[in-house]
Amino acid sequence: MATYGLIEYADASPEVRAVYDDIMATRKTDYINNFWKALAHDAGMLKRTWEDTKQLMAAGALDPVTKELIYLAVSITNACSYCVATHSASARKKGMTDEMFHEMMSVVALANGNNRLANGYQIEVDEQFKAPLK
Amino acid sequence: MATYGLIEYADASPEVRAVYDDIMATRKTDYINNFWKALAHDAGMLKRTWEDTKQLMAAGALDPVTKELIYLAVSITNACSYCVATHSASARKKGMTDEMFHEMMSVVALANGNNRLANGYQIEVDEQFKAPLK
Amino acid sequence: MATYGLIEYADASPEVRAVYDDIMATRKTDYINNFWKALAHDAGMLKRTWEDTKQLMAAGALDPVTKELIYLAVSITNACSYCVATHSASARKKGMTDEMFHEMMSVVALANGNNRLANGYQIEVDEQFKAPLK
Amino acid sequence: MATYGLIEYADASPEVRAVYDDIMATRKTDYINNFWKALAHDAGMLKRTWEDTKQLMAAGALDPVTKELIYLAVSITNACSYCVATHSASARKKGMTDEMFHEMMSVVALANGNNRLANGYQIEVDEQFKAPLK
Amino acid sequence: MATYGLIEYADASPEVRAVYDDIMATRKTDYINNFWKALAHDAGMLKRTWEDTKQLMAAGALDPVTKELIYLAVSITNACSYCVATHSASARKKGMTDEMFHEMMSVVALANGNNRLANGYQIEVDEQFKAPLK
Amino acid sequence: MATYGLIEYADASPEVRAVYDDIMATRKTDYINNFWKALAHDAGMLKRTWEDTKQLMAAGALDPVTKELIYLAVSITNACSYCVATHSASARKKGMTDEMFHEMMSVVALANGNNRLANGYQIEVDEQFKAPLK
Repeated sequence: MATYGLIEYADASPEVRAVYDDIMATRKTDYINNFWKALAHDAGMLKRTWEDTKQLMAAGALDPVTKELIYLAVSITNACSYCVATHSASARKKGMTDEMFHEMMSVVALANGNNRLANGYQIEVDEQFKAPLK
Repeated sequence: MATYGLIEYADASPEVRAVYDDIMATRKTDYINNFWKALAHDAGMLKRTWEDTKQLMAAGALDPVTKELIYLAVSITNACSYCVATHSASARKKGMTDEMFHEMMSVVALANGNNRLANGYQIEVDEQFKAPLK
Repeated sequence: MATYGLIEYADASPEVRAVYDDIMATRKTDYINNFWKALAHDAGMLKRTWEDTKQLMAAGALDPVTKELIYLAVSITNACSYCVATHSASARKKGMTDEMFHEMMSVVALANGNNRLANGYQIEVDEQFKAPLK
Repeated sequence: MATYGLIEYADASPEVRAVYDDIMATRKTDYINNFWKALAHDAGMLKRTWEDTKQLMAAGALDPVTKELIYLAVSITNACSYCVATHSASARKKGMTDEMFHEMMSVVALANGNNRLANGYQIEVDEQFKAPLK
Repeated sequence: MATYGLIEYADASPEVRAVYDDIMATRKTDYINNFWKALAHDAGMLKRTWEDTKQLMAAGALDPVTKELIYLAVSITNACSYCVATHSASARKKGMTDEMFHEMMSVVALANGNNRLANGYQIEVDEQFKAPLK
Repeated sequence: MATYGLIEYADASPEVRAVYDDIMATRKTDYINNFWKALAHDAGMLKRTWEDTKQLMAAGALDPVTKELIYLAVSITNACSYCVATHSASARKKGMTDEMFHEMMSVVALANGNNRLANGYQIEVDEQFKAPLK
């Protein structure tokens, strides 16, 4: 089920096809994830979201696996089951090992717990951490 | 302000001092963060939380900076201002550069947005992503 | 699956039937959503929740479609799949067009991302926004 | 406090100044919010976030006030205090009345409560709401 | 700071005063929390919220302290600093001891962590837990 | 579906079997929940999570049913469907009645709503609640 069904390549407008083509070329695959086929109901949203994702998930000061781990950590925290399923696969494809996944999971569980200890004990920020980073 | 005030070294029980000593030795500092001084009201919680944090944030399949970035991504998503302030500083101390921070931020914002696109369009997981990782 | 099963009209107490009758009369339908059939295990909760929903989602300073869009934005942010599915349908029934849905989705994704940029950069509220609205 | 301090116009690079100029021209003001001055540490993020915000918050199928109410509903749900403070002011500037604000608040509180009733009673989506919208 | 300032008893309408009077009588105090003084800008919201809070937090199958602990657990999870501060005080007033608070905190941290382990490992519900409770 | 499949007793390492044995002995059952079988891919995480859960959910200043109610309140707030399903059952097993469940649900919905009223009206903490508890 998707709110509006999925738009297949054969049924897509030229604008949507152009994005699909770029996804397939960039990812070296002929498969388009359901995510993009659902967003295709709004061609502007599809294009914007794909271009941001393509640019921001590419190698930079952080390598692509680290970016996928960060993306997964957020998706897990937000209980987005679609995103967890698909990005577990893409992280694996980009080089994430089982050990990396398990360690990321441990850090995510720890941070989610510790965040609430800080909230519940109403801990004030230490003076030395109030200054901007330099 | 903290729910129970902060317990300083001079006022701490031997169990709490043992944890404080380990924090200072591990981190090569004589400063104890407010987080630990607030948790010290429950010595068992302090010891358990510190030992988990010490073990799980240490180098493994993921290096300490990557772990800090994941920890920050979770804390930012959860709006834990204490955790964002202190872990921005600790990530920096362990080697996070400005470029790494900015890229992490871009991925966190992207994932938080995309998570909601997946939720709102009620996108079903693609068949190929339903199988367990191998 | 529901934690306690669903209570059908035929099996309902007089108090529950009175609420079901009001739901059907108000919505001009003979269908009762699973939500109400699950809440019916606690007749007080059913009545209170229905009366609040009926009153607060009705036209006022905001029209019913705007209220449904706000309700959807919250439900999407919270990853409540039941609420997204049912309120997408009720919003549509009250006049939400595809264009309105897509624009709401874009704003929801944007806000979820920008919220985390504000959290992560620890941005202090500008002086001029600290004063109460007038 | 902001993680990296705020970048004022006088100290900004030409790329950042170009965005600041567009913000001031678009909003017909000479004030730049702290949000943009903090993002300016990453000129690409600043430009991308501003252009998305400018485009997506403009009038379309939804008017600007409705978009601000949706943005506020998300920010309130996520406990983003910076975003609540600034967007309460911008919503007001675009025409939000007190009555509109209060009704939005009532819907946000209702939805946040009802989302958890659906989660806690584990209510399954009604068959009729599983089909895509038409 | 509050979005609309706080409405004091002397400046309140008769409807608002009636709620304030009931709060003071019920709680055996002459102090009205800022929460109620802020909600008073919408007399209907004030009355509805107070009456729900009064009824639902009173003794029933669960005693008032247990209800306060549940309320705190939710508020801590949601990072609502106002609610954590005020309900820590009200829980204490109703009989919460330090040991109870610390144990609640440990359970809250544990659940927040374990919730993400379940999300991240995408664990399917065991067959035996799919049936409704009896 | 689980990210890595489930590890059954017959296929488990000695370390994992030792945890499984302790789970079955502690819970007086021969059934191991999917949660533990998924975590077993990382024996250290399994052991640590089980030992924390065993210790923290046991009777102390709070009885086991109260702890399960707090655990459920957090899981419902976080939309963790796996955790809601399994802990509804374990809470029931430890003595939670229907009335207790319904009252917990009412408090969870109330707190989730009120948390957002406090956020949206930007209510400042009352002076008297800023001091630490005594």
